[in-house]
Amino acid sequence: MRLRIIATGGTFDKHYDPLSGTLVFRDSVLPTALAHARLADPPAFEPLMAIDSLDMQDSHRQQVLQACERSPEQQIVIVHGTDTMRETAAVLGHAQLQKTIVLTGAMVPCRIADSDALFNLGFACAAAGLAAAGVWVAMNGRLFPWDDVKKNRDAGLFESAR
Amino acid sequence: MRLRIIATGGTFDKHYDPLSGTLVFRDSVLPTALAHARLADPPAFEPLMAIDSLDMQDSHRQQVLQACERSPEQQIVIVHGTDTMRETAAVLGHAQLQKTIVLTGAMVPCRIADSDALFNLGFACAAAGLAAAGVWVAMNGRLFPWDDVKKNRDAGLFESAR
Amino acid sequence: MRLRIIATGGTFDKHYDPLSGTLVFRDSVLPTALAHARLADPPAFEPLMAIDSLDMQDSHRQQVLQACERSPEQQIVIVHGTDTMRETAAVLGHAQLQKTIVLTGAMVPCRIADSDALFNLGFACAAAGLAAAGVWVAMNGRLFPWDDVKKNRDAGLFESAR
Amino acid sequence: MRLRIIATGGTFDKHYDPLSGTLVFRDSVLPTALAHARLADPPAFEPLMAIDSLDMQDSHRQQVLQACERSPEQQIVIVHGTDTMRETAAVLGHAQLQKTIVLTGAMVPCRIADSDALFNLGFACAAAGLAAAGVWVAMNGRLFPWDDVKKNRDAGLFESAR
Repeated sequence: MRLRIIATGGTFDKHYDPLSGTLVFRDSVLPTALAHARLADPPAFEPLMAIDSLDMQDSHRQQVLQACERSPEQQIVIVHGTDTMRETAAVLGHAQLQKTIVLTGAMVPCRIADSDALFNLGFACAAAGLAAAGVWVAMNGRLFPWDDVKKNRDAGLFESAR
Repeated sequence: MRLRIIATGGTFDKHYDPLSGTLVFRDSVLPTALAHARLADPPAFEPLMAIDSLDMQDSHRQQVLQACERSPEQQIVIVHGTDTMRETAAVLGHAQLQKTIVLTGAMVPCRIADSDALFNLGFACAAAGLAAAGVWVAMNGRLFPWDDVKKNRDAGLFESAR
Repeated sequence: MRLRIIATGGTFDKHYDPLSGTLVFRDSVLPTALAHARLADPPAFEPLMAIDSLDMQDSHRQQVLQACERSPEQQIVIVHGTDTMRETAAVLGHAQLQKTIVLTGAMVPCRIADSDALFNLGFACAAAGLAAAGVWVAMNGRLFPWDDVKKNRDAGLFESAR
Repeated sequence: MRLRIIATGGTFDKHYDPLSGTLVFRDSVLPTALAHARLADPPAFEPLMAIDSLDMQDSHRQQVLQACERSPEQQIVIVHGTDTMRETAAVLGHAQLQKTIVLTGAMVPCRIADSDALFNLGFACAAAGLAAAGVWVAMNGRLFPWDDVKKNRDAGLFESAR
C-alpha cells in the first residue's frame, strides 16, 4: 500500500440534508468513490475531519500536517475544501516533508450530477505517484506548486498566483 | 492547448439502447465528461472512431497511430476499450513518437452508476502531463509501460505482464 | 395532450452553483426528467416561476391559480416547494376548479443522488389521471386531499393534518 | 402496510457486469429505489425471481400469480421485464383476484443515466392505490387494462392493442 488518502471535508464530500435543505457532512463519500475507481492497490483511507475549509483554523491545519508526518505512505492525497486549500498547502509546504502531497477537492459535490470530484480524485492520485516530493494543488486539470496557486473565485478556477 | 484526447470507443463510451436492450455507441460522452471536469485548458477532442476494442483491426490501430503522429499536442490521452488496449499500446510504443501517450478506458460505462470512467480519465490526464515521453496504460489507479501490461480478465484488473 | 405540468421551483428543481456553493434556480430540470420518463403523450410544460416556496407570496399563488384556470388540460401536476405546498394547495382548493390538480415536489433535488423527485413526479402524474377532480398533494407515496395535509418538518414527511 | 412490491427481474433491475461486459441480475435495486422514494408507509418487498421476461415460462407466471394470491396487501406493484409483461398480465387478469395489481418495468435500467425506472415505479405505486381492482400495465405514463395493451417494439412504447 503506497498511497494514503486523507479526507478533511470540503465541497467534494458534502451531502444534501433534506430536513434543513442545506449541504452538510456525513460519512465521507470517499470509500464509495474509491470502490468505483477499482484500484489495484487500495489506498489507506483516513477520514481526519469533515469541515468547510472556510472553518479551518490553524489547529486544523496542524492536524493535517501531523497526519502527513505520521503517514507511512510516501504518496498522499488530501481531499480539502477549495476556499483555503492554498493556505493548508502552504503550511504543509513549509514543513518540507520528503513526501509527495497532493491537495484536491471539487467545485461541485461528488453526489451531485456533473461533479468534478471523481475526475479530480483520479488526477490527484496519478499526480501523487508521478510528481516530485513536495506539496501540490490539483484542480481544473492542472497541478500547481503550493507556493504558486490561488483560487479565482469569480471564475471558479484555480490559477497561478503570479 | 497542450492536451489532446482521442476517443476510439470501448466500454467507457457505451450507451444503453432501449430498443435492442444492448450497449451501443452514439455520440461520445467525452465532451460532457470533460465539461464536468472544469478544465482550465480545454483539451483538443478528437472522436476518431467508436468501436469495441475486440473489433479493432490493424487498420484501426494504424489510424490511431496516425492521429498521434499528426497531433500538435505533445500530451495525448486515448480512450480505448480494455480488451485490446495492450495491442494498440504496442503499436504506438514501437513507433517511438516523442510524445507522452496514455491509453485509458473503463470497466463500467461512464453513464452507469459506479463507473470508473471519470476517475480513470482524470488519472490519465495527469499522467499525460507528468510521465516521460512514451506510451503508457492507465487503469486501476496504476500507470503501466506499454510493454509491461496485460488485462487479467478473470479479476477485471490490469497488471504487470511479467 | 391531456396533462399539464407547471413548474414553480422548490427543492425539486434546484441546481448547485459552484461559485456560491449554494443551491439556486436555473433552467428547470423538468424537460429532461420528462424526457427520461418516455411518456407516450408528452405533457404541456409550463415553467411559471422558479422560487423557494418559503418566498411565495399571495401574488405568486394567484399566478398559480390563474395558470390552472386557463389550462386547457383537465389534469395538472404542479411541481412546488414543500414548505408551503399546503398553502398553495389551499388557495387552489378553495377555487373549486373542475380539474384534477396534484401538487408534488421533492425532499432532495432531482440532480442529487438519492433524490425522490422522479418517483414523486411519476406518482403525481398517475394521480392526476386517476384521482377525482379536486386538489391533491402527492408526497411520500401518499395522496392527500388539500384540506388534510401538513408537512412534519422534524420527520421530513407529509402527513394528515388531523 | 397496504402495498406489496414484487420483483421479477427485467430491464428495470439489471446491473452491468464489468467482467462479461453484459447486463446481469444481482441483488434487486428496488430496496434502494424505495429508500429514495421516502415512502411514509414502507411497502412489503418480495424479490420473487430475477429473470429476463423473455425467459419467463408458464411456471414462472404461476409463481407470480401465487405471490399475488397469497399477498395480504390488496395493492400490488410487480416490476417485470417489458417484453412479456402483457403475457404475465393476462395470466393474472384471467385469475380475477380482488386486488389492484399494476405491472411496470423500465426501458432503461434503473442504474443507468436517463432511466425511466423511478418515474415508472412512482406511477405504478400511485396507480396501485387509485385504480379499481383488476390487473393493469403502467408504462410510458399511461395505465392500460391487462387485455388492451401491447409493446410496440419498433417505437419502444406500450400502446393499446386495438
